[in-house]
Parts: sequence; C-alpha cells; structure tokens
Amino acid sequence: MIPYSAPIQDMRFVLNEVVGMDRIVSLPGYDSATPDMVDAILEEANKLASNVLAPINFSGDQEGSVLENGVVRTPKGFKAAYRQYQEGGWNSVPFDPEHGGQGLPWTVAMAVQEMWQSANMSFALCPMLNQGAVEALTAHGSDELKEIYLGKLISGEWTGTMNLTEPQAGSDLAAIRTRAVREDGHYRISGQKIYITYGEHDFTDNIIHMVLARLADAPPGIKGISLFVVPKFLVNPDGSLGERNDLRCVSLEHKLGIHASPTAVMAFGDNDGAVGYLVGEENRGIEYMFTMMNNARMGVGLQGVAISERAYQQARDYARNRVQSRDMADAKGEPVAIIRHPDVRRMLMTMRSQTEAARALTYYAVAALDIAKKHPDPAEAAKGQSLADLLTPVVKAWSTDLGVENASIGIQIHGGMGFIEETGASQHLRDARITPIYEGTNGIQANDLVFRKVIRDGGTAARTLFAEIRETIDALKNRPGDDMAAIAIGLGKAVDALEKATTWLVENGKRTPAAAASGAAHYLKMFGIVTGGFLMAKGAMAAQEGQADPSADQRFLDAKLITARFFADQFLPQAIGLLTPITEGHRTVTALSDDQF
Amino acid sequence: MIPYSAPIQDMRFVLNEVVGMDRIVSLPGYDSATPDMVDAILEEANKLASNVLAPINFSGDQEGSVLENGVVRTPKGFKAAYRQYQEGGWNSVPFDPEHGGQGLPWTVAMAVQEMWQSANMSFALCPMLNQGAVEALTAHGSDELKEIYLGKLISGEWTGTMNLTEPQAGSDLAAIRTRAVREDGHYRISGQKIYITYGEHDFTDNIIHMVLARLADAPPGIKGISLFVVPKFLVNPDGSLGERNDLRCVSLEHKLGIHASPTAVMAFGDNDGAVGYLVGEENRGIEYMFTMMNNARMGVGLQGVAISERAYQQARDYARNRVQSRDMADAKGEPVAIIRHPDVRRMLMTMRSQTEAARALTYYAVAALDIAKKHPDPAEAAKGQSLADLLTPVVKAWSTDLGVENASIGIQIHGGMGFIEETGASQHLRDARITPIYEGTNGIQANDLVFRKVIRDGGTAARTLFAEIRETIDALKNRPGDDMAAIAIGLGKAVDALEKATTWLVENGKRTPAAAASGAAHYLKMFGIVTGGFLMAKGAMAAQEGQADPSADQRFLDAKLITARFFADQFLPQAIGLLTPITEGHRTVTALSDDQF
Repeated sequence: MIPYSAPIQDMRFVLNEVVGMDRIVSLPGYDSATPDMVDAILEEANKLASNVLAPINFSGDQEGSVLENGVVRTPKGFKAAYRQYQEGGWNSVPFDPEHGGQGLPWTVAMAVQEMWQSANMSFALCPMLNQGAVEALTAHGSDELKEIYLGKLISGEWTGTMNLTEPQAGSDLAAIRTRAVREDGHYRISGQKIYITYGEHDFTDNIIHMVLARLADAPPGIKGISLFVVPKFLVNPDGSLGERNDLRCVSLEHKLGIHASPTAVMAFGDNDGAVGYLVGEENRGIEYMFTMMNNARMGVGLQGVAISERAYQQARDYARNRVQSRDMADAKGEPVAIIRHPDVRRMLMTMRSQTEAARALTYYAVAALDIAKKHPDPAEAAKGQSLADLLTPVVKAWSTDLGVENASIGIQIHGGMGFIEETGASQHLRDARITPIYEGTNGIQANDLVFRKVIRDGGTAARTLFAEIRETIDALKNRPGDDMAAIAIGLGKAVDALEKATTWLVENGKRTPAAAASGAAHYLKMFGIVTGGFLMAKGAMAAQEGQADPSADQRFLDAKLITARFFADQFLPQAIGLLTPITEGHRTVTALSDDQF
Repeated sequence: MIPYSAPIQDMRFVLNEVVGMDRIVSLPGYDSATPDMVDAILEEANKLASNVLAPINFSGDQEGSVLENGVVRTPKGFKAAYRQYQEGGWNSVPFDPEHGGQGLPWTVAMAVQEMWQSANMSFALCPMLNQGAVEALTAHGSDELKEIYLGKLISGEWTGTMNLTEPQAGSDLAAIRTRAVREDGHYRISGQKIYITYGEHDFTDNIIHMVLARLADAPPGIKGISLFVVPKFLVNPDGSLGERNDLRCVSLEHKLGIHASPTAVMAFGDNDGAVGYLVGEENRGIEYMFTMMNNARMGVGLQGVAISERAYQQARDYARNRVQSRDMADAKGEPVAIIRHPDVRRMLMTMRSQTEAARALTYYAVAALDIAKKHPDPAEAAKGQSLADLLTPVVKAWSTDLGVENASIGIQIHGGMGFIEETGASQHLRDARITPIYEGTNGIQANDLVFRKVIRDGGTAARTLFAEIRETIDALKNRPGDDMAAIAIGLGKAVDALEKATTWLVENGKRTPAAAASGAAHYLKMFGIVTGGFLMAKGAMAAQEGQADPSADQRFLDAKLITARFFADQFLPQAIGLLTPITEGHRTVTALSDDQF
C-alpha cells in the first residue's frame, strides 16, 4: 500500500495566509466556514482519503473497470468506498442548501476535493463529473428537472455524467451529430458519444447523463446544439425508478491511465431513441456548458495539484529510505539515504515548490469565484469574476502540465524502481497524462487565455493583476533578509517580461491572430510561473511575519520561506526566457508548408 | 499498424553537412564508408526497420514477453525478426573485422541503430546490450575468451547481457554482493542480479552473461569488483554447447514500458555456483565497465533521438489527417486538419527541432569517438577523445529527457486519442521513460559532466568547444539574411551564459561540491541546448550554401533553415534562464533538513 496523508498544514497555510479565508468567510452564506470548522472538515476528509480511497488506488489501477454483458464492474473496494463517501455527506459540500447541499465555499470544497484526487484520481472523477451535471442543472434546469434530479445528484444517491465528445467532435463541438427529436413532453435522443467518464458503473442505481445533441431544424454549428438530461432509468412521478432508457455502454476504452475509471463509449437510441429532457432552451446547450466550465476546468487543474502532491509524498518517502552512495561532503563515510544527494533534493524541491505554487494559484482562483458568486457589492463580484475568468485557463493548463512533470520527476527519483509498476510511481504519470487533454486541451486553454481573457479586454484584467503583483513586490522590498530581496528582484523582472508579452499580444493579436496563437502556450506558462511566484512570495511574507510568534511552528514557516526562494531562483528566470518565443516564435511556427513536416 | 520510415535524408544531411563524414571516411580502416556505401546501408537498414521491426512494435507492447517454466517467450514475430536481423549481418556493422565484424565507423552504425531503436525499441535493446558485451570482451578479454565467444556475439548467433545491478546496488556498484570463488581454471559465481535486459529469451541458443562479482579477498568497495563471462550453456572445446550452467531467470519485471523486452531477475549459483571466466584481471571489473560506458551511454542517448523521431512521425501523420475546427485565418471556412492550427504546429516544430538537434549532437559525439579510435595523429585522437568524453553525459541525459518530452508532446497532439492505448502514441512515452534512468541516471550524468568532465580539467575541454562555437557564430554573422543574424545573436548570448556557468563551476566546484551538484542537471541541460543550437546553426549554414545549387532539394534545405531558427528562438533563451538556478540554486536546494520535506 502506498500511503497518502493530506498536507493539511500546507492547505491551511494557503487558505489562511495566501488566499485569505477571512475574505471568504465574510461573504453572505459562508459565515459557517470558520477556521475551526474548516479544520474539522479537512481532518475528517483526510480520514476518508487516507484510510479508504488511497489504499485502493494502486489495486484499482491494476484491476481496472471491466464491462461484461453491458454491466460495468468497478475494481474491488470502489463501490464500498463510494458508499462511505456518499454516506459521509461529502458529495454535497459546495452545493446549494436549497437542494440539500451544505453550501460551503468552493474554496473549502477545493481543498477537500484535492484530497480525493490525490488519494485516488480514478475514484474522484465520478464526483467531479457529477459536479458538472449538478451545476448545469442548478443554473439552467427547470424547476421540474431540479425537483426530480438535483437532490439525488447532490446527495450522491445518483451520479451525473457529461456527454459531449463524438468521434468527429472533440475540441470542435460544432461538429456534434447526435440527434434530438421532439416528442410530447420530451425528446428522443440518438447517437454515439465517446470518452464518457463513469458513463456506466456499479456505484448507484441510476446514472443521469447530460447529453449535447442537435435538433434537425437547429442552426448549423455551435449555436444549434441543445443540452438534455437523459437518465439511465426513467424516473416515475413518485421518484421511484421506472423503465430502462434506450441507452447502453458499448465498450470501455483501454487507456494509458485512470484504469479504474470506466471511460465509456455510449450508444443512445439504438431502438426508439432515448428519452431526454431539455435543459433550459433549445440551441443554447454550448452556452450552458460554458457556465460550468470555470469550475470544471478548475477541477482538472486541481487534479494536477493533487497528483503532484501524491507523487511528491511517494518520492519523498522513497528518498528518505533508499540508501545509495556516500554523501558528497563525506567521501569516506557510509552510504546515505538518497535524500542527502543534491540532485535528488533539487528534484524534490522542484516537485514541492511547483505543487505549492499550483495549489496556491488554484485556491486563489477558486476564491475569486466564491467572491464573484457571493459578494454583495456588484463591483467586487465583477472583479472576482474577471480574475477567475482570467486565471481559469492558467489553473487548468499550468497545473496539469506541472502534474505530468512532477509525476515524471517522481519516477526519476525512484531510479530503476520507478519503472516497475509494483512501485506505483509510474501510475501517477499514467494517470496525470490525461489532465492536459480533457476538459479543453491545454492548447485550447492557451488560446482562451490569449484571445478571450487578455486580448478581448485589451489586457485590462491582466494588468489589474499585475498591479497587485507589483504591490507585493514593493512590500517585499521593505522586508528584511536576502531571500525577500532576491524574490523581489526575480519577481520584478518576471512581471516586467509578462507585461511586455501582454502588450505585444494586445497590440498584435487582433491583426495577426496566428502570430499570437503561435506563442499562446508559452504565454500561459509564463502567466502561471509569474502568478505562482507572486503567491509564493505572499506566502513567504506571511511566513516571515508568522515567525515573530515564538509559539508558531518555526520549522514549517522556515520551509515556506526556503521553498518560495527556491521557486523564485529556479522558475522565474524561465519565465523571462519565454518572452522571445512569445514575440518572435511566429516567424517559424507557421513557416513550413504542411508537406515540409 | 503504425508506420515508420527512417528519415534518411535528415540522417544524410547530419552525417555529411553537420558532422562531416569526410573527416571520418579519411580515417584508416574507414575508407569503405563512402557516401554511396553509407546511402546503400541506410536504404537497406530502413527496409528491415520499416517492414519488419516497426510492424511488431505495438503488438509486442501489448503481448509482452512472458516467463513460463523458466523459459521466456518473446512476443509474436520477434524471434523471426531477430533471425532476419542476424542473417542480414546487421549485428556486426561496427565491430572489429578480425572477429568477423564489418568495421564500419561508429558514426554510421549510430545512424543504422537509430532505425532499430525508432522502429522497435524493445527489440533493439537486445543488440544494444550485446554490443556492450562485445566491447568489454574485445577490450579486455583473453585471446581464449575472444576465440570462444567473440565471433558468435559479433555475428549475433549468441547474445550478450550486462549483469550489474543488485537490489542494494543500483547507482552505487560498490555495494555489489554477488560472490566469485576461484576454482581450477575458472570461477564459481553466486548471487542475484536484477534489471537484466534480455537476461533470458528465445532468440538464440546461448546467452553470454557479463557479470560483476566480488571475490572474498577483494578490497572493499568499487576496487574489489571483477568482471566475468558466465554463459547460459557451457561451451565445449569444439565450440558446441555443453552443460547448462547454474543460472536461471527467476522472474520478469512488470514495467511501465518496453514490455516486449524481457527484464529479468537472474539467479546465479543456486546449486554449485555458476561457472564463470574472468575478464582481464581480478578487481578491475568496474574499470572495464567504464571503457565501454561511452558507447553504451551514446546508445541510450540515441534511444532518446529515436523515440523522438518515431513519436514525431506518428504525431505529424495524425495532425495531417485529423480534421477539427476552422483555420484561424478563415473563421467562416470549413474545418481543417489540425496541422493548420498554430499551437499544433508549435508542438510539431518543437518535436522536430529537438529531434534534429539531439540527433546532430549524438552523431557529432560519436564521430569524435571514431576520431579518438582511429586518428593516426595522437594529438587529434586525444582531442577526439576529450570531446567525446565531454559530450557523452550530455548526449545520454539531454537526448533522453527530450525523448520523454517529445513522446509526451506526441500524445498531446493526438488529443483524447493519445490517451487510448490502441493509438500507440502512449507507448512511446512509456518506452521512453526508462531512458533517463538506465545506464546511469541523468542525475549521475549531470554529476559526471560537472565534476569529471568540466571541473577536473579546469574547464579546458569545455572551453575548447566554446571556442569552436564562437567561430561558428562569427561565420554566421557574415551570412546574409535575418535568420542567420537572429541565430548568431541567440547563440552568442547562450554561449556567454554557458561560459559564465562553467567559470562559476570551476571556481566553486572543488571547494563546495554540493553547491555545484545542486545545479548540475541545469548545467547539463544548458550544455545540451547550446551545443544542440550550435550544430543546428552549422546545419543552417550548410543548408544556405546548398541552396546555391539549383538542383538541390530547395524545400528540404529551406525547412532546415526554418527549423534551426525555430530552435534558436525557442530554446536558446531557455539556456540563459538556467544560469541563475546553476549559480544560485544551491542556496535553497540543500537548505531544508530531511524532515522538513
């Protein structure tokens, strides 16, 4: 068994010292999220994560979910774990109390969900997708649909899925062909959907599919797609389960990772057409999907953080125990644990600092969403929304790229053992590798950032954030110590480069979109490093302040300072190195003809 | 079936225009390696690679090698492919004609071997390990051992293996416990070895294990280890196979990748001890291993190049055929192949340019080895050896890190399909992931570069290379065109940074080795980018010259220029960004106590 224990002290530090939970708890409806309450929730969640979900992560990967006679059997222990998860009320944490949710801030829910994702990403995908269904229904469903489905999706008695992709319609949802035909009071849906996470499973009695489909008389393209609720079993007026709907799981994919999570090919309407119920209005399905995209993309970014944390813990434990070669400083001594070797420490510090930075950025962005949703002052709410919109693609893409990188470093720290499946280190890389792809590829995130979030408003939202970063740099300059000075200098140069890149994009992007798109991925990475460095710097200042209290955990705070300085020394110079590729890269990115490749 | 076709035009360009095959063909004994002969060899090798080895790469991964009753069964088609490989004389390409080798330059052998590794890395591991055994025996074996074993290992009638690692002795071979006991005319070997590539298989009648073991009266540590030839079947005086030796394959590892390659746990001497024959003198085994390390490490670096090329070809073909979303420049048009999208092109150009740079560096370093081995002027030979020694860790580590990165980008270009095993894109990542680990982890390569290759000679060998790079920069400045100017400026800044880093390491490394080791991996990366950029620049100049000939393949040469400029714009600035981590990183890399992690 590969242990996992939630980094509660780190999470609390980010929530309280970097994000500022005081800003969140003061929002209307969030007053129950006091520090004590949050602590209690995190402690309790950690029990489920570490004792129930983590122990079946490796066995689940080895066993995988299997389809037999149309029925999916999840790996040993998964169904029982889901029951514990559901009965513990964990599914309802962030949802509307009106439908049985606990109404806790999304910021707190993210910390809790990080634990599920770290402990067992394959398991946690089921609630993550369900969350998307809940949000879509909450925002756009009729009262009747909410009445029938929402409570049970929120409690976790049923699970929801998202049915978007078709073989010819991946990144381009305009190409969707699944058909919807109007019938009395409902619709008939037919078509094939692929990559449907938990499209079929044995956790619950019913599965509620949210399906994108097209009416015959709909406008072409993206504005002709509607969203439907298509339950596996129809629901009788008294809430009991009725007939089996005309849909089935055709096959499960053989994937690089997340083996325990059944990824289904779904066939709707092989016979008479599956009964579906329209969400909101016809032809507005894509728009509805986008309203829940922010959270879903944050959720995938969170997976990057979570898998980084899990890989870090495992690599750290291995490095502490594996004895090999002498200490550099003691050439005649006995062999030492490899954590003593500088290059292993560099790798561990890389994992650690990148995980902390991505966690800080993810929680910070989700806090902005909470403010957007709850702040009584519309100006403040708009500011929160603007920040959340800006950061969402960065959270999604930067964190997941780091998840892959950190999982790969985790293998490297294990040496030859890392390549042996029984060690479990390689599972993290295999699992992580999907995260830069799904919920909008990281290339799509980069274009979203550059065109929709930066160029469209002329860089206003970005510059608002940069101004905040510069305030932090000014504050750093007034702090004592070399570390603060070094961080201030590094962050200053990096934000200068980011501003230059932003200006270049705003000036050139509308006229020459292909040029802007050529450097979009680099710009997103630069954005991630600079904002990550900014939040690490905030953490460093908080740690330094905290050290004034002699009763504080000095070693913990000291480690925060050192990790922030490490991040600044190692990664901020990289951000500067991305400026040329952003502004000059287009000269060659688009220069070859297709057949010259 | 996932096609592969060797990039012969690229290989020829590197050999003739970047490495300079004229320098190699003029060496004594290498005069048969004329351009026509090399062309013919490459064309012929490509037939075997593309028609025989590539088609069983994916099926071999899915099926894997299995152990049953002590016998290893390789996947369908592998044994037959080996026979074709052996009968074609491919195994003997670079070896000594005195023992049946073809005596071709290693530079040519590398191009040929790149094809095997691209087509089927799992297959190609068998000859690669055999090559190590051949070299060890050639350099250090007695005439009797050579007489019995060398011819059959060179012809490929038998294969050789390298038995180094034990559970407690991975990077640290000083910890080896396998015992050797003197007996009349031979030794008895007993102990367990792990990670033995092709330690057991069904390709050949006999397997010749090269085994590191320790005599009871040997000095402790690294200077008490001897090297033995331990055949699976003893060999009668007439060359026929005799008794089965006391050794067996205990199990095969379940690995992340290279599933078709059997990675064996080997038990020697369960009964009376396996009969082994000493190579060279007692207690000099590690020294002997190191004489063949250069080639072996170049061979693993080559795997990084090869897997990059394979992943690139597959991603390029997918990007040409997968239609999704409209062209940015034509918002009302029809959906286009994704190769039209700038971010996909950026990813393809990244794969392409990094593959070309790593190939150039690998061939260039191997050419230096050829010069070291064959040049009649001892001063020139010594210069070749010095350059090869310097570049070996860079080839091994930089190319394999790029192999992992490029394979991962290949998955990303495939989108969701990349995560599905049937696509075959993920196999390349799984296969590639071992290369930064085996044959000395990349961390060990970085320390080798910093301490043995740079600090030990006070930076002399490195500065000799930098001077050559500066000559190229001067030549670039005299060339027409923006591209040449941009490359010259980028390369100039990057080599300045590399010189600064070198000076810092030389000045500080001996006094504070842990500080130097803290940035060693970054220094190696910087070294790879700068030398890769230097060779890409040489290629660009050759391409520009070549364009003067109207009968030349203008589009090919044009692509070389563009790819070199892309490399300069994208990666040289990264090299500069590594200077701070190299010189400042140590402040935090070693700052945490072990329990603060």
